[in-house]
Amino acid sequence: MSDVSANNTILQNRILVDVDIKPITRKFYLQLDPPSLLNNLADVDRLRGKLPEGFSNAYVPLPVLNKASAVLWDSNWHATVTLAQFNGIWQIIDVEAGDTSSRHYGIAFDIGTTTVVGYLVDLTSGKTLGSAADYNGQVQYGEDILTRIYLAGSEGGRKKFQQAIVKTLNDLILRLLNEFKVFKQEISAVTVGANTTMVHLLFGLDPSRICMSPYIPVVNHPGFINAACLGLETNPLAPLYCLPGVGSYVGGDIIGGILASGMHKKTDLALFVDIGTNGEMVLGNYEWLAACAGAAGPALEGGVARHGMRAEPGAVYEVRIDKQTGEVHYKTIGSQKPRGICGSGLVDCLAELLLAGIINRAGKFKGNSKEFVVVPASETENNTAITFTQADIDNIMRTKGAVNAALEYLLESVGCKFEDIETFYAAGAFGQYLDLESAVTIGLYPDLKRDRMVRLGNSSGEGARLVLISEDCLREAEEISRSITYFELNASEVFMNKFVGSKFLPHTNLDYYPTVKKKMLARGLAVD
Amino acid sequence: MSDVSANNTILQNRILVDVDIKPITRKFYLQLDPPSLLNNLADVDRLRGKLPEGFSNAYVPLPVLNKASAVLWDSNWHATVTLAQFNGIWQIIDVEAGDTSSRHYGIAFDIGTTTVVGYLVDLTSGKTLGSAADYNGQVQYGEDILTRIYLAGSEGGRKKFQQAIVKTLNDLILRLLNEFKVFKQEISAVTVGANTTMVHLLFGLDPSRICMSPYIPVVNHPGFINAACLGLETNPLAPLYCLPGVGSYVGGDIIGGILASGMHKKTDLALFVDIGTNGEMVLGNYEWLAACAGAAGPALEGGVARHGMRAEPGAVYEVRIDKQTGEVHYKTIGSQKPRGICGSGLVDCLAELLLAGIINRAGKFKGNSKEFVVVPASETENNTAITFTQADIDNIMRTKGAVNAALEYLLESVGCKFEDIETFYAAGAFGQYLDLESAVTIGLYPDLKRDRMVRLGNSSGEGARLVLISEDCLREAEEISRSITYFELNASEVFMNKFVGSKFLPHTNLDYYPTVKKKMLARGLAVD
Repeated sequence: MSDVSANNTILQNRILVDVDIKPITRKFYLQLDPPSLLNNLADVDRLRGKLPEGFSNAYVPLPVLNKASAVLWDSNWHATVTLAQFNGIWQIIDVEAGDTSSRHYGIAFDIGTTTVVGYLVDLTSGKTLGSAADYNGQVQYGEDILTRIYLAGSEGGRKKFQQAIVKTLNDLILRLLNEFKVFKQEISAVTVGANTTMVHLLFGLDPSRICMSPYIPVVNHPGFINAACLGLETNPLAPLYCLPGVGSYVGGDIIGGILASGMHKKTDLALFVDIGTNGEMVLGNYEWLAACAGAAGPALEGGVARHGMRAEPGAVYEVRIDKQTGEVHYKTIGSQKPRGICGSGLVDCLAELLLAGIINRAGKFKGNSKEFVVVPASETENNTAITFTQADIDNIMRTKGAVNAALEYLLESVGCKFEDIETFYAAGAFGQYLDLESAVTIGLYPDLKRDRMVRLGNSSGEGARLVLISEDCLREAEEISRSITYFELNASEVFMNKFVGSKFLPHTNLDYYPTVKKKMLARGLAVD
Repeated sequence: MSDVSANNTILQNRILVDVDIKPITRKFYLQLDPPSLLNNLADVDRLRGKLPEGFSNAYVPLPVLNKASAVLWDSNWHATVTLAQFNGIWQIIDVEAGDTSSRHYGIAFDIGTTTVVGYLVDLTSGKTLGSAADYNGQVQYGEDILTRIYLAGSEGGRKKFQQAIVKTLNDLILRLLNEFKVFKQEISAVTVGANTTMVHLLFGLDPSRICMSPYIPVVNHPGFINAACLGLETNPLAPLYCLPGVGSYVGGDIIGGILASGMHKKTDLALFVDIGTNGEMVLGNYEWLAACAGAAGPALEGGVARHGMRAEPGAVYEVRIDKQTGEVHYKTIGSQKPRGICGSGLVDCLAELLLAGIINRAGKFKGNSKEFVVVPASETENNTAITFTQADIDNIMRTKGAVNAALEYLLESVGCKFEDIETFYAAGAFGQYLDLESAVTIGLYPDLKRDRMVRLGNSSGEGARLVLISEDCLREAEEISRSITYFELNASEVFMNKFVGSKFLPHTNLDYYPTVKKKMLARGLAVD
């Protein structure tokens, strides 16, 4: 899995949000007066009494009672207390001898359907010390989310998926602990950004109703649980908090993204888009937020294209066609011999074919061509040409059409126009790799001033990090999830109509895409 | 153990305190709107949203999430929610189909060193449906508390004692469930009144420091834990709450007693006394409370007297000496052939010997007698005379002296006088059986107007019942335990001096005991 790890190092968290470091766990070094006949408070009550204001009512769970007492007597009454937020009350989750207040860590996870990334965070500084990534262990039982929902319909199925994701999380935790010389007991909190189905599978909840009308999850606000309930390799009393969701298809990953973008606190109208197998989008500003989601299809994940593949070594991720010579230039992940094309390569292909005049705005090859050779057989690993076919184009057009239709539906629902959008945030790994110009050219992204277009990278993970280091962010996340208006596309006829009508490149209305129009005019591919 | 159960039925709870029924768990029957595309709240969030004000932020633990969802869909959205208080926040601990709100139960325990009593309480009416009692299973490993503290010094020892008491509690729970046709899952809360050592042994905490200077417990305010942490046969998420203690020798049993007496809310100066192997006493009123405790010794438990025995069938519990004829009249528990004398019988013996002029005020036999035959050999079960010896008298005198000394110490510490005491509460099983006149005669109880002397019965159990049915009482219990002033007698020289000087019957100063003085004057046993 080194490829995933390697890729992940490119995913720099772009920190858009300034926060005061007020983590959901705290450590305090206390120097207590030893007990005497005249000062005969019980050990644990003595400890509590010395905590800073706001913490002295902290609850002490059974396993900590004995430990606290033993540590206090053995440490000559100099000890460090770890406190954790649990649904509004503070709990003492550890007591250590001496001053250990600087060794204070948490882990923020982005649990994607395909990939899981863990970030080890120093809760004193708020800084990310490092990250580790791996495929979601559930992939072995089902690549796509619908298969998993189906298989998790039985209790045995749920158990299997839960064990698989817990194993992935624990593997990542152990890698991080090893690399940064941190002890399991020192991980005092875990936060998770994940879509609604992933949260259900992590908690062992029945996800069946997520994919059938009226699309109702078991819970959107699970709150805090003990990491030990899941068997995580952390302090067993560490709280685990999943970012809250809005509905079956707008989960904590999206709330995390909004949080990381800061769009919920700004005055300009922003569009947030996260395109994977599902496409989620959020429109709004500090006054209101509206969201919708729909199946984008696997076209952009490289899963269905004839020579499509995941973003792994050997995947063509960048394609340029010389408009003069027709010559094709490409780049592969790891600079290895080409094995296939991943999502960003496919978007590049489509954009370049349009701008080179090889396909028309309806996405059809001009003339009799049925495919375009991206890499000739002589250059590929298995000596078979890597091509981009009409069927591949049709698939991407469907995905892009769904995204366009969802956006139009959302704009109309809130009474805004396409040109009102002032800022654009591209979330997710796909948004990180995708060539911005190509994405605009095919109409997947809106055609805004480029400095108003922001790649957020792994904003689900960044959202999880923010709630880990900031109680304020945690409160904001809960507020965002409760205030957002969610439009269910699965059931909307209006959406279906828009979907049908949005299959032109970049859009039926070329005026929405001024820079693309300009390029096409310059090349004689469009008339004003 | 039928004898203990049988005895217990005599222990009527004298309800001195009126409370509004506001139990620490609640049940609400909810009729929810079914979900639709336009009303697509998640199942659990839908449920929470319909709870009465103050409960809608209730936390839903992992095991309830799945159950809640399944029950809601299967019950056509008509379900009953059980909520429990946990250290200041409400948790949903159960969701049942239909309206089950009237089936709402809790169990209040009095865990004594020797005997455990469980009360099944209907949390809708606040009424006790029934009780069950048994010996504390720890007795098999050590009768007295010091032996148990010593043996629990090791982790293995603690485990053993914890398992023993949990088995006793579960046996009692199962008996109550069976008798009253209540299901385990319907027991939604458990409360406990117990001394500090019993709480430590129940929670598996190290009690070692309770009996060595400066006498510091691990915790006095353990708060709520999940009953499941101990393996109790209740709803696994039921909260278990132990009445808070004040120190190593004034525990939750005493706080429960104060609560049950209501002395903390009254204007008159009251003395609360609970005499067992340890004697605890509390002095005060609505403005202040002061407590102390000391080893009363096992003299009154029947454990050390030559023919002493526990209050079991065949025990002589009442003794009268005809002052004319010297004839002895006695009664035994269960009206069986005498086997020995229990505590109340011993106190009767001492008082009757004094009033019959057979012993003097120093507790010595007049003339050459060394013992007094209570039951001749011909009437006893094993054909051996049951006697009351000089050594037995000396032991009871020591116990009584300790109680007198503690009271004087306490009075002096708070600047009050013996004659300021207006009301007297006798707590505990011993206080229930003891003949009031005899106890006054030997100076164990103060000589107040008899209508100001109240037997509380099992006030530790009654305190546990009160916090089960009333959040207000729970708050009061916490307040009492924090506001009480605790005087540590173990270390007090002043106390030791008083102890030495208080070995006369009923007291060195006969004027403190006007009714006893009157009787003795009438019989020529004292001079004015």
